[in-house]
Amino acid sequence: MANKSGGVPSKHSSPWSHYIDAAFGFRDHWYPAFFGDELEEADVSNAHGEEIANIRTEVILGERILFRRVNGTVYAVEDRCRHRGVTLAARPECYTADTITCWYHGFTYQMNDGKLTTVVTDPECPHIGKIGLHSYPTAERAGIVWVYVGDGTPHPLENDVQPELFENGITVAPFGWSKVVNSNWRIAAENAFDPGHAYIHRNSELVIENKVPTVLSNTNIKHNNGMEIVDVGDGPIGVKIHRASGTPVWEADAAEGVRIEARFRPGDPGVMEGMVPDISIWLPAGVAVDPFPAPGVLQFEWFVPVDEHRHRYMMTWAKRGLEGHAEKESFFTELRETWLQDVPEKFNHDDVFAREAMAEFYDEGDGWERERLYGPDAVITSWRRLVSQRGGTVQDSSRAWARRDLRS
Amino acid sequence: MANKSGGVPSKHSSPWSHYIDAAFGFRDHWYPAFFGDELEEADVSNAHGEEIANIRTEVILGERILFRRVNGTVYAVEDRCRHRGVTLAARPECYTADTITCWYHGFTYQMNDGKLTTVVTDPECPHIGKIGLHSYPTAERAGIVWVYVGDGTPHPLENDVQPELFENGITVAPFGWSKVVNSNWRIAAENAFDPGHAYIHRNSELVIENKVPTVLSNTNIKHNNGMEIVDVGDGPIGVKIHRASGTPVWEADAAEGVRIEARFRPGDPGVMEGMVPDISIWLPAGVAVDPFPAPGVLQFEWFVPVDEHRHRYMMTWAKRGLEGHAEKESFFTELRETWLQDVPEKFNHDDVFAREAMAEFYDEGDGWERERLYGPDAVITSWRRLVSQRGGTVQDSSRAWARRDLRS
Amino acid sequence: MANKSGGVPSKHSSPWSHYIDAAFGFRDHWYPAFFGDELEEADVSNAHGEEIANIRTEVILGERILFRRVNGTVYAVEDRCRHRGVTLAARPECYTADTITCWYHGFTYQMNDGKLTTVVTDPECPHIGKIGLHSYPTAERAGIVWVYVGDGTPHPLENDVQPELFENGITVAPFGWSKVVNSNWRIAAENAFDPGHAYIHRNSELVIENKVPTVLSNTNIKHNNGMEIVDVGDGPIGVKIHRASGTPVWEADAAEGVRIEARFRPGDPGVMEGMVPDISIWLPAGVAVDPFPAPGVLQFEWFVPVDEHRHRYMMTWAKRGLEGHAEKESFFTELRETWLQDVPEKFNHDDVFAREAMAEFYDEGDGWERERLYGPDAVITSWRRLVSQRGGTVQDSSRAWARRDLRS
Ligand code: FES
Ligand code: FES
Ligand code: FES
Ligand SMILES: [Fe+2]
Ligand SMILES: [Fe+2]
Ligand SMILES: [Fe+2]
Repeated sequence: MANKSGGVPSKHSSPWSHYIDAAFGFRDHWYPAFFGDELEEADVSNAHGEEIANIRTEVILGERILFRRVNGTVYAVEDRCRHRGVTLAARPECYTADTITCWYHGFTYQMNDGKLTTVVTDPECPHIGKIGLHSYPTAERAGIVWVYVGDGTPHPLENDVQPELFENGITVAPFGWSKVVNSNWRIAAENAFDPGHAYIHRNSELVIENKVPTVLSNTNIKHNNGMEIVDVGDGPIGVKIHRASGTPVWEADAAEGVRIEARFRPGDPGVMEGMVPDISIWLPAGVAVDPFPAPGVLQFEWFVPVDEHRHRYMMTWAKRGLEGHAEKESFFTELRETWLQDVPEKFNHDDVFAREAMAEFYDEGDGWERERLYGPDAVITSWRRLVSQRGGTVQDSSRAWARRDLRS
Repeated sequence: MANKSGGVPSKHSSPWSHYIDAAFGFRDHWYPAFFGDELEEADVSNAHGEEIANIRTEVILGERILFRRVNGTVYAVEDRCRHRGVTLAARPECYTADTITCWYHGFTYQMNDGKLTTVVTDPECPHIGKIGLHSYPTAERAGIVWVYVGDGTPHPLENDVQPELFENGITVAPFGWSKVVNSNWRIAAENAFDPGHAYIHRNSELVIENKVPTVLSNTNIKHNNGMEIVDVGDGPIGVKIHRASGTPVWEADAAEGVRIEARFRPGDPGVMEGMVPDISIWLPAGVAVDPFPAPGVLQFEWFVPVDEHRHRYMMTWAKRGLEGHAEKESFFTELRETWLQDVPEKFNHDDVFAREAMAEFYDEGDGWERERLYGPDAVITSWRRLVSQRGGTVQDSSRAWARRDLRS
Repeated sequence: MANKSGGVPSKHSSPWSHYIDAAFGFRDHWYPAFFGDELEEADVSNAHGEEIANIRTEVILGERILFRRVNGTVYAVEDRCRHRGVTLAARPECYTADTITCWYHGFTYQMNDGKLTTVVTDPECPHIGKIGLHSYPTAERAGIVWVYVGDGTPHPLENDVQPELFENGITVAPFGWSKVVNSNWRIAAENAFDPGHAYIHRNSELVIENKVPTVLSNTNIKHNNGMEIVDVGDGPIGVKIHRASGTPVWEADAAEGVRIEARFRPGDPGVMEGMVPDISIWLPAGVAVDPFPAPGVLQFEWFVPVDEHRHRYMMTWAKRGLEGHAEKESFFTELRETWLQDVPEKFNHDDVFAREAMAEFYDEGDGWERERLYGPDAVITSWRRLVSQRGGTVQDSSRAWARRDLRS
């Protein structure tokens, strides 16, 4: 197997050493950048090149990427002028929809391929046509703008998404929620997919308000017992958990003589029905929860590496079998009026809390060596091994050039 | 002599090289953690494990320690879950008084020995009874909760305190003052014990308001001339200064032709009497000033290492010969109404200023090599040599795992 | 040639490797510290040594320098007590005009040579007369206090200034503007002297409000075509650009099919006349723009290294041929009422923006290796080579001892 770290052997001797190396994520993958409704059609400067609107930058794997939508299509280029490195987005000038001009000396680049086409301050500049910004492949599907961070020709987008997202007959919301969270992306992935962490949700407001049956945890989930590795060559690669399998823990001793139990169990009066979700995690950085937060609704989440200490946490929802405009609109309205606020604020904020609380140990300390995993973590170690073997190239810190996240 | 730095030789060639190495303090010592009145009896979670009150954490020598009082006794454990490293105090759950449960996956530990006794999310977990949190020996005496940061069986607490604190017939206040100061603990120790620094107090408000006779400095204090090393095998180890010895400087040239003098001298009309304090400093981190701030009152101070850049500055007061409840209460009332505010705010704030002002040179720069000591510093170098020889094991930075001080 | 980095070979193989090494600037040069009107005559402490006013500190090349004006003459000493390193300016005590006393233990130094003359807390201290603070040569000319940061006897101040500043018959304002900017000093120098950066000023408010003809850029400026290296042995060393030379770009393609042009050209109705400025840059850190911002007015700028990430940006103005008090006062009034605010706030703030925008690439990233320079940068690389060859000694980071800038 080719070395994932560009020739540098891992300094970790672990079954998931590449994963430990990948603080900045794995290259050669598609990542969701933002929701399509967050970027409108490109604006164009006036005759004096004054600042335009409708531009977006994201730091992904430590690279700052600039996006513009031209005639509907979103293009992405490196947001670092080839001349002297300033961020173009600091004072975006775009004399045409399909170019961007550096505000400092007027190097003008094509949005579709990053090529340098004009230099305002030196019209005969020999660099023209020869150099350019890195151009990132993009796609827009399921309401999301995707970007390929890697070298060479990208593999199909389909390989890097939760399969349900592109399922026939599914309706994905054309909007979603996102926020930068102060933990490494791996901490987020493990939190999202952790059967033992169900425990933190027993007191989540959304669970209480909606009487969602929430197990304390599921034990004994392992290969051929509720867990399945999906790695069939050309499709998405991931791990699936069937929550109905394993051993659900509905009550347990919390300390000697203190027995605690789940707030709501399936079948209890008034408790939400049909809520034993399957959860799956997919390379490079997404999960699907089916169903959640309500019967028939699927929740998709992503934890996109920003830098070694932060990830962008994104989520959206989908439903199967909706027919016609009215049914879809009614689903979107339900999402907008309820779940779009309630899920992040009354449920997943507990995950955000947990991720940030783990950052001291893993991001700043020696957590990868010091952790003492337990039974339910078998699904996490399966994920770690899988990513370590099947993920792309480890993003080296030297390629994570964006020292400043201009959003914050 | 065993190597203080766990086998790593000091990189300093100095008569006090271990002291220079000990930015994080010395292990194998008792430290004051907080005043007993700052921690009430343990609270217990409701049936849903919701957050409890009455818990306290302190970072000492770079380790975050969690304290709970169970049936009156304070216990201390490492505040870092053995599973995946989160701080338990972030969302403290305690289903019984004598346990603490990690909010993330329900690992439950005994407060008295740190042992893992229950795992809510995996009741059969084989780790139970086999692993645990580091358990810190504790004691509560003289109104203070003490904690032993070290390995193996602790030596007696008495060896690590100012002897006057446990003196027969002394009444120590059951409360005190404390604050985290932005300097290394050694800078604080040296400031507190420095005969030359008397100079900064000539303008302290407390000195002016109370007409406290305050010398400009004392010179010529050295072995057998006002200074005494105390190191008698099994008791406290320290250095004592008799201020009446040495050469008190009541006036001096500040510059050519400008003679300055102390604001108040003993015997002047209206000047506070009986105020020529002895001062002593004791391993690992305390001083006693006798008397201060008033005749018959003793002031105790500590500078407990938090991390390499901060110490917790603590102080309390005592009086000898008080008889019966009423006399003691009257002393406590005097302290509460006057000295508890006035001493830190009108006197020792000048020391806080001096400590923080020295941090650039010693904490961030090359002060240990560059300093040019002078005569009155002989007492400081005696202290440095003594600690370097007789202090415990240098706390290695790799053991100072607490990257975040949750108080701030 | 002697090695610029004190014997350490540069790790850069570049025609301007010393320049790349000189993040903290070059020693053995005169730098402007502040404007003379910013420091009044020395204040003297009362009998209790309470804090005095009229003291000033600046961090230059990473050294914190303390200034006092004694009988009109400004003296400068290292602001780090020789005893235990505190900053004297934190609580300045000066019992006489020509001394400064450390507030901590009363070490008293002469302002004119830094010598330790008295120790309040140890009058017999043997250090007296033997040690001292580093004393920096100073000069006050053209309304500016200059300080020599270097070793040995300084060369003449005249060698380190823009020649016009000391020109016969010129009137320099006895005041100016300054601000600490968050970029390295080299980024500032290059921004100021960059013919291609004219582009950013086309939208500067000052240009628009005053109809200043502003070219988009000047190309083809090179040796013997508009650019001249000045290095005649004993005088100032620098690079001059004659803007009227080279190829002025008044209009250009910004993108295919979009032609843009300068807002105002010379000769257009209502446009300010006589405004084709020459610009020159001089070791160690200054430029002259002649004329700017109005015909007959010269603008001088400096970018004094504070530390590796900041420079002090200073500017003032001058006029030739003014006769008598009234003419000069009228010029000063014009500056005070207009240009002193308008130039920095409506013109050079765009340069400040550009400098700070380049800091990510050069100060935090690998800009020196990654940049792709273009034609107009020939003047910048001439400057880099010249400084690399003819600048003083590279300031090593270990000599940049001031970790804290007390101004901020
Ligand atoms: S830095 Fe972008 S054109 Fe010069
Ligand atoms: S991190 Fe504490 S139980 Fe898992
Ligand atoms: S630190 Fe300045 S006199 Fe002691
Ligand atoms: Fe969760
Ligand atoms: Fe003091
Ligand atoms: Fe400019």
